[in-house]
Amino acid sequence: MVDVVRTKKPSVHKRHPAGGAPTAPHSADEARRVDASEPRIDVAAVTELLLGTWAQARREAREMIKDEAFWQIPGQSMAEHRERVLGQLHRFVEAGAAGRAFPVEHGGQNDNGANLASFEELVLADPSMQIKGGVQWGLFGSAIQQLGTAKHHARWLDDVRTLTLPGAFAMTEMGHGSDVAAIGTTATYDPDGDEFVIHTPFRAATKEFLGNAARHGRAATVFAQLITGGVNYGVHCFFVPIRDENGDDLPGVTSEDDGVKGGLNGIDNGRLSFDHVRIPRGNLLNRYGDVDAAGVYSSDIPSPGRRFFTMLGALVQGRVSLDGASTTGAALAEYIAITYANQRRQFDSGVGTDEVVLLDYGKHQRRLLPRLAQTYAQFFAHDQLLRRFDGVFSGASDTPDEREDLETLAAALKPLSTWNALESIQECREACGGAGFMAENRLVGLHHDLDVYVTFEGDNNVLLQLVGKRLLSDFAAQFTDKDAAALARYAVGQTAGRIFHGAGLRRLGQAVTDFGSTARSVELGLRAEQQHELLAGRVEQMVTDVATALRPAAKLSPADAATLFNEHQTELIEAARAHGELLQWEAFAEGVAGIDDAGTRQVLTWLRDLFGLWLIEKHLAWYLMNGRLSAQRAASVTRYIDRLCARLRPHAQDLVDAFGFAPEHVRAPIASGAEQQRQDEARAYYAALAASGQEPVSEKTLRKQKR
Amino acid sequence: MVDVVRTKKPSVHKRHPAGGAPTAPHSADEARRVDASEPRIDVAAVTELLLGTWAQARREAREMIKDEAFWQIPGQSMAEHRERVLGQLHRFVEAGAAGRAFPVEHGGQNDNGANLASFEELVLADPSMQIKGGVQWGLFGSAIQQLGTAKHHARWLDDVRTLTLPGAFAMTEMGHGSDVAAIGTTATYDPDGDEFVIHTPFRAATKEFLGNAARHGRAATVFAQLITGGVNYGVHCFFVPIRDENGDDLPGVTSEDDGVKGGLNGIDNGRLSFDHVRIPRGNLLNRYGDVDAAGVYSSDIPSPGRRFFTMLGALVQGRVSLDGASTTGAALAEYIAITYANQRRQFDSGVGTDEVVLLDYGKHQRRLLPRLAQTYAQFFAHDQLLRRFDGVFSGASDTPDEREDLETLAAALKPLSTWNALESIQECREACGGAGFMAENRLVGLHHDLDVYVTFEGDNNVLLQLVGKRLLSDFAAQFTDKDAAALARYAVGQTAGRIFHGAGLRRLGQAVTDFGSTARSVELGLRAEQQHELLAGRVEQMVTDVATALRPAAKLSPADAATLFNEHQTELIEAARAHGELLQWEAFAEGVAGIDDAGTRQVLTWLRDLFGLWLIEKHLAWYLMNGRLSAQRAASVTRYIDRLCARLRPHAQDLVDAFGFAPEHVRAPIASGAEQQRQDEARAYYAALAASGQEPVSEKTLRKQKR
Repeated sequence: MVDVVRTKKPSVHKRHPAGGAPTAPHSADEARRVDASEPRIDVAAVTELLLGTWAQARREAREMIKDEAFWQIPGQSMAEHRERVLGQLHRFVEAGAAGRAFPVEHGGQNDNGANLASFEELVLADPSMQIKGGVQWGLFGSAIQQLGTAKHHARWLDDVRTLTLPGAFAMTEMGHGSDVAAIGTTATYDPDGDEFVIHTPFRAATKEFLGNAARHGRAATVFAQLITGGVNYGVHCFFVPIRDENGDDLPGVTSEDDGVKGGLNGIDNGRLSFDHVRIPRGNLLNRYGDVDAAGVYSSDIPSPGRRFFTMLGALVQGRVSLDGASTTGAALAEYIAITYANQRRQFDSGVGTDEVVLLDYGKHQRRLLPRLAQTYAQFFAHDQLLRRFDGVFSGASDTPDEREDLETLAAALKPLSTWNALESIQECREACGGAGFMAENRLVGLHHDLDVYVTFEGDNNVLLQLVGKRLLSDFAAQFTDKDAAALARYAVGQTAGRIFHGAGLRRLGQAVTDFGSTARSVELGLRAEQQHELLAGRVEQMVTDVATALRPAAKLSPADAATLFNEHQTELIEAARAHGELLQWEAFAEGVAGIDDAGTRQVLTWLRDLFGLWLIEKHLAWYLMNGRLSAQRAASVTRYIDRLCARLRPHAQDLVDAFGFAPEHVRAPIASGAEQQRQDEARAYYAALAASGQEPVSEKTLRKQKR
Repeated sequence: MVDVVRTKKPSVHKRHPAGGAPTAPHSADEARRVDASEPRIDVAAVTELLLGTWAQARREAREMIKDEAFWQIPGQSMAEHRERVLGQLHRFVEAGAAGRAFPVEHGGQNDNGANLASFEELVLADPSMQIKGGVQWGLFGSAIQQLGTAKHHARWLDDVRTLTLPGAFAMTEMGHGSDVAAIGTTATYDPDGDEFVIHTPFRAATKEFLGNAARHGRAATVFAQLITGGVNYGVHCFFVPIRDENGDDLPGVTSEDDGVKGGLNGIDNGRLSFDHVRIPRGNLLNRYGDVDAAGVYSSDIPSPGRRFFTMLGALVQGRVSLDGASTTGAALAEYIAITYANQRRQFDSGVGTDEVVLLDYGKHQRRLLPRLAQTYAQFFAHDQLLRRFDGVFSGASDTPDEREDLETLAAALKPLSTWNALESIQECREACGGAGFMAENRLVGLHHDLDVYVTFEGDNNVLLQLVGKRLLSDFAAQFTDKDAAALARYAVGQTAGRIFHGAGLRRLGQAVTDFGSTARSVELGLRAEQQHELLAGRVEQMVTDVATALRPAAKLSPADAATLFNEHQTELIEAARAHGELLQWEAFAEGVAGIDDAGTRQVLTWLRDLFGLWLIEKHLAWYLMNGRLSAQRAASVTRYIDRLCARLRPHAQDLVDAFGFAPEHVRAPIASGAEQQRQDEARAYYAALAASGQEPVSEKTLRKQKR
């Protein structure tokens, strides 16, 4: 392809075809050539670490989706995409991968952890497949399994597992999403027919956004207000057939198609409404509440509130799996963007060398490396969440406290990881420029599909508010009634500490060290223990501050109390976010602590530090205002991050390689090495041109010669 | 639809069908009923203000696109979408709206401001149409107009305007996007044939991401290294025919299709490569550089660097129009989300009233209202940019200084407004929950389409770096050589001020007032002048800091100097961002200053304050570290924002109504009033049920009665 005769090298920019990088080493190998003591991660070992407790299940899922039949086809029409994804789920069944969490007697493996772990990996093939599978087995199937009893399992679980009975999970309504307790659909018991009458009393009570509702579902698990004997016993779940063998709506059922969405268009989301649809009494999924033939209601859980939350809690796996899937999605985006950033060159450095590799730019490191650290933290935090989930659902540690902790943990982590995924994917897409906007390079598709993860299975802000309330009640539990005075003193002490923040500064001994040699003192003062102290201290104080601000509520009218609460809603949500960040950091720190290999531990410690410092930098104003960091130390946080980025830069490729993705999982041409190949070709062209003596001289050089 | 017999109201949550809002007034009307002195904006007058200098052109464009033939159809296949958009451009021509910036003698109106203004409005119909029109008239056409001379205008402009000659703008290559100077395509003059030979010497030199290249383009304006007589004169632009009448590639030309993208799929982006394609010498667009028949090069601009930047600068209109279009796109998203937030209710407040309207939640106000303020600022800033653009391109104020200022202003504003658009659209999408994810509600489509605005027509980070360099050179220009000592003293003074930040605090007299009554003192200390001082002071100091940090570069080796610069790249980009934010704030303040109506001025002053305080809050850590705000004042910034949000809450609907969108521009069912209608129906149902005496009692009430 090199044409040395007719065209000539533009020497506006000097190029040295064999030139080295103008800045730091590009790989751990290069770094070791400069300094033999440079640590290096054991890539394979880190892959195992990230795959976590259910590594084998994940490996099997990844192996399965190497088959291109599972891959998303960008630009496929909605109708074709829907059929393709349905077919993928059938293949999934054939591979024996479906319904692993189901009881052994119904073809499952009763393995909750492995089930979610393998399911999360499907995001690499096509998030539509992941979520449609989640609807079928994780929501529709789980509702039958968790809210139903043995007779329901016997009747339906096998067909659910094998996809013989595709179903919808009909909880959300047009009028009520996050506030499930307020749904309008009714299930009124009619003792004459021994039936429940499922009814949609007004348009806003139409079931909405349900996967499988527009086309493929044959039945639905419908949440409705259970009414019997003139009493409303609150929301319960009912098994309701919706389509016949031909796929036509059954009498009284109306389905509608939601049409095109922002992503996940391989799923046939739609609406369902019911016009006095009669179902047998036995179709009430009656694990937590039952109605006898005479219409008498009974439940093992007397409190309607606790019963409601127990039923919802049984469905927590959706949130757990989104935490894992969004982490894997972000990791894929980072693999693509960092691999490209290690090959793509743009602008020469003005010092007569080759053009600069993107990842050598300070800004580019800043854009990508902290997000990589965040994703590592999420892998570790997710494995902890999954172990807790498995413990509760396997029965090994199924106590009310453990259930509550699991729900709180899922509610804290899912918002952070789903938002982080969107932000990371977007940053990766922008970091790849126009190439990042091409569908073939995956990044835009990941963003489109994962977009809705931040508002479904619990709106992120609503979930964080739940976490915040839990933090408040834990906080209040520390103080018995007679300790109210102590609480008041504590609160005052905190406020005083904030106003006269000398005390806060002394806690970290900054006043002394800050005026010494900066680089060393700052690293001494921002190591693991201090990061932990800063992150944990922030959660404590934020919760204390909100609790203190809300104390007067007890003496106010309900309306004024609601107003007061509303005024502090943002702070409460921020406290919950801080709590989630702390948990992620702690999980990362625990993960690193368990590593034996010195090189791996060193590099991952840097990455953990980068994550911690990045969190602290995000909230730097808070630390300053609250006297937790001096202005000097705060300024050094940013410099320390820059230094950590530079240190980690040669390890960036190792760190994304450790995600363990095969080419069949990545599939993005820009991360395939094609860019490097094109550059090599261009470089060879210019080299041959220079060697030929036919290279045109640049106008600038010419002008200099003339002068 | 109300069925009072068979179903009963779920009274888990109490509802008062006629209940009022639990918190603040929802509209300016309601607010006035509470307090007659409440100001109110004159909605129509604000619409005029926002439409700006070329209001008439914008109104005409908006009127035209009320025709549904111009609307995007979500989910349409790429092939159909491409043909539809091409058809829309033909309609645009028929409406006489195309090529308004072209010379009168070629069917245009020589009206640069009106041309861009009307073009920007097309984003409301379909961003693909806006951008494909931009490719045809703003890039391909502008290249001929701005870089060509009278003979080129006479030959092609009429056909370009009427779309008889659709064309591509072939600047970017696979290997080089932002770094245009380094492109590989060559145009070698062959005196024997009096022709230029256009050639793609290697794969990376393939022209890439070009609208109209995959299908519709018949010619392209191709940027290539001009080589004649063995000398490379740098990048010039050439008119190159690429397809014949049948739409087939001409000999030597190879076109490829980029396929599906993250958005803008109504545009046929593709690649072009050239295998020794011969074009007449006259096809060089020779306004800034020419070659005679003997192959002798000549130019009015002797410096190759200045010539290059002059040619690129002539194409600044792309950036200008993206600033406007992304502002309008963000405004549409905010109209949809705020209108919905004013109707949608979720969760009762626990005080026996109706469910709470979303916009009454403190967090929801916090999510949406500062972004609304941002968009207002952008409208004002954009009108200033457009006036400057019109001044230069109409010739009214076409000086080198004005051109440079225009380019810097466009480079500062385009990154901010395009990023803000993406962030605002995403926040709006999330604020609408699942409904926000439905394509029919527009938000996801806007995000998909506008995504690439942040990296095309100049990558945002690269543009900000350009602005940063300009700021540095302006800064350096203040100090002549002999003033180097003064600069050094200045820098030292700054650093000292940062370490001992008592001085900084005194500047705003905070040390005294901060310990007084908070609410009043903070507002006194954070009004317009102080906002301006804080924002402007930050730009000054950031530039000074970077300049100081880079001073040693002069004494370093080129490699070490490049390393030093790279270490401060992020700071330089942040300084440029601060500069852009200051310009937006100033434009908003100037806009408000010109308002006569007292009510309008008051409300827009609050909105301007919200914008200013929001910017200050974003950078609060910087203000604290640099001693520009005390911890107490910094803490009050957040409280002040909360208060401003509460004050503006009743005006939110007026403020988005003032964008002046007709239902044909909005088209989102959730912003159509359908939500309100559904709620009214539900409310009527429950009211009728209560009146009928058939309402089921809640289990909770029952249990209380039993006790």
